[in-house]
Amino acid sequence: MTVMSRLFTQSDGAAVAVENPYGSSDVILICEHASNTIPDSFSALGLEQDVLASHIAWDPGALAVSMLLSVRLDATLVYQRFSRLIYDCNRPPSAAAAMPQTSEIYNIPGNSNLAEAERYARTSAVYIPFHDRIAGLIHERMSAGRKVAVVTVHSFTPVYFGQKREVGIGILHDDDSRLADAMLAAAQDGSAWTVRRNEPYGPQDGVTHTLRLHAIPEALPNVMIEIRNDLIADAAGQERAAGFLGDILNKGLASLE
Amino acid sequence: MTVMSRLFTQSDGAAVAVENPYGSSDVILICEHASNTIPDSFSALGLEQDVLASHIAWDPGALAVSMLLSVRLDATLVYQRFSRLIYDCNRPPSAAAAMPQTSEIYNIPGNSNLAEAERYARTSAVYIPFHDRIAGLIHERMSAGRKVAVVTVHSFTPVYFGQKREVGIGILHDDDSRLADAMLAAAQDGSAWTVRRNEPYGPQDGVTHTLRLHAIPEALPNVMIEIRNDLIADAAGQERAAGFLGDILNKGLASLE
Repeated sequence: MTVMSRLFTQSDGAAVAVENPYGSSDVILICEHASNTIPDSFSALGLEQDVLASHIAWDPGALAVSMLLSVRLDATLVYQRFSRLIYDCNRPPSAAAAMPQTSEIYNIPGNSNLAEAERYARTSAVYIPFHDRIAGLIHERMSAGRKVAVVTVHSFTPVYFGQKREVGIGILHDDDSRLADAMLAAAQDGSAWTVRRNEPYGPQDGVTHTLRLHAIPEALPNVMIEIRNDLIADAAGQERAAGFLGDILNKGLASLE
Repeated sequence: MTVMSRLFTQSDGAAVAVENPYGSSDVILICEHASNTIPDSFSALGLEQDVLASHIAWDPGALAVSMLLSVRLDATLVYQRFSRLIYDCNRPPSAAAAMPQTSEIYNIPGNSNLAEAERYARTSAVYIPFHDRIAGLIHERMSAGRKVAVVTVHSFTPVYFGQKREVGIGILHDDDSRLADAMLAAAQDGSAWTVRRNEPYGPQDGVTHTLRLHAIPEALPNVMIEIRNDLIADAAGQERAAGFLGDILNKGLASLE
């Protein structure tokens, strides 16, 4: 019996899920904010259902696009099965934003003044197994002499704190911009998408944690993709986005050879 | 394969060890700073052997006293098998002191400017399994209707930053002082030991992390014991300390009934 039993029941299932584990692509796709599922024991963190359906609990559409990309590229996909309001796997345990007390304009009652024991239990049950799985995959492939590229997939809200956002797709990077540069170059070939570098967020916002954890120490090509969620609100939009992103990812990776 | 393989080899063994797992006592003994072992891959963190032998790498004598207490009380003991300089299991991942860049007057070269990935790997490989084991033990016993008391055992250096310390044994507590009060009362019966409350450290120094993690949320009686390490430098001193501490622990627990 582990501490996990305090947070999750058997029916909640595991925090981490892997699709296409034996994918042939160099790319490992990661979706930290795939789900808005809150395990029963958390009583919805005191939030209404409409708030839990919104972007503060997850990145709507990001998992769907990741799944399509996984098929197109034959790439392994690792995603988090619980809401980022339980633990935001793109933030380290030392960050307040890992278990946020507020998100945009909302208070999160179930996250206010968390005791150390609760922070520990969530870190142990959500963050650690998620990143252990990714680290294990990467090191297994590197040990076998395979190449690895780390690609995280996110979506963002078209209106944030009342401001409308023009950018459609953000190509984000930290210190290592090789893959981002190559994808941005590939995106200039007469695309219909408004693609921008490090928008609407950038490394200064602390959003490159997963890249810093897994890719940068090993000098693996890496990129974080942000898609405006109104563009991937239905299956047709998700297919279009996956088609475009798969194309510039393939071109970008090819140009790094 | 997990990320642990980056830090530890097979011969390093596990980070957590348990003695007397089926002990009949309510007490669970915890020794976070039991060992000064640095796994080979860390190249001694750039420190000389005499520094690694000193109190900055571990609590000398604390494991020996804990082992004796485990036998006397028939209590389960959980201890950490690696040096606190790799990860100090009495500090949360958010604390700089979890992987200290300096300790007393020493720089720790192998801990300077640690990357997020390295902090994560150590948290995952050392801190999480240690506290998961303790949490699992506690919840298993509580689920079975058993009582639990949490007792951590530490030692401190007689001279710190050049200052001599008079206190021989510190009985430390956080918000819940029930067991500490009872032990301090028991210690007044003509003992030869200089016993003080919350000396040479107290909760304001951040040393009650383990108590706050495991005991306070469940309202379990708890205490942190600090022993001046020159008093437990040999087997005779360790036997004396274990005899005295076992006695005031038993009296303290009995008075809480």
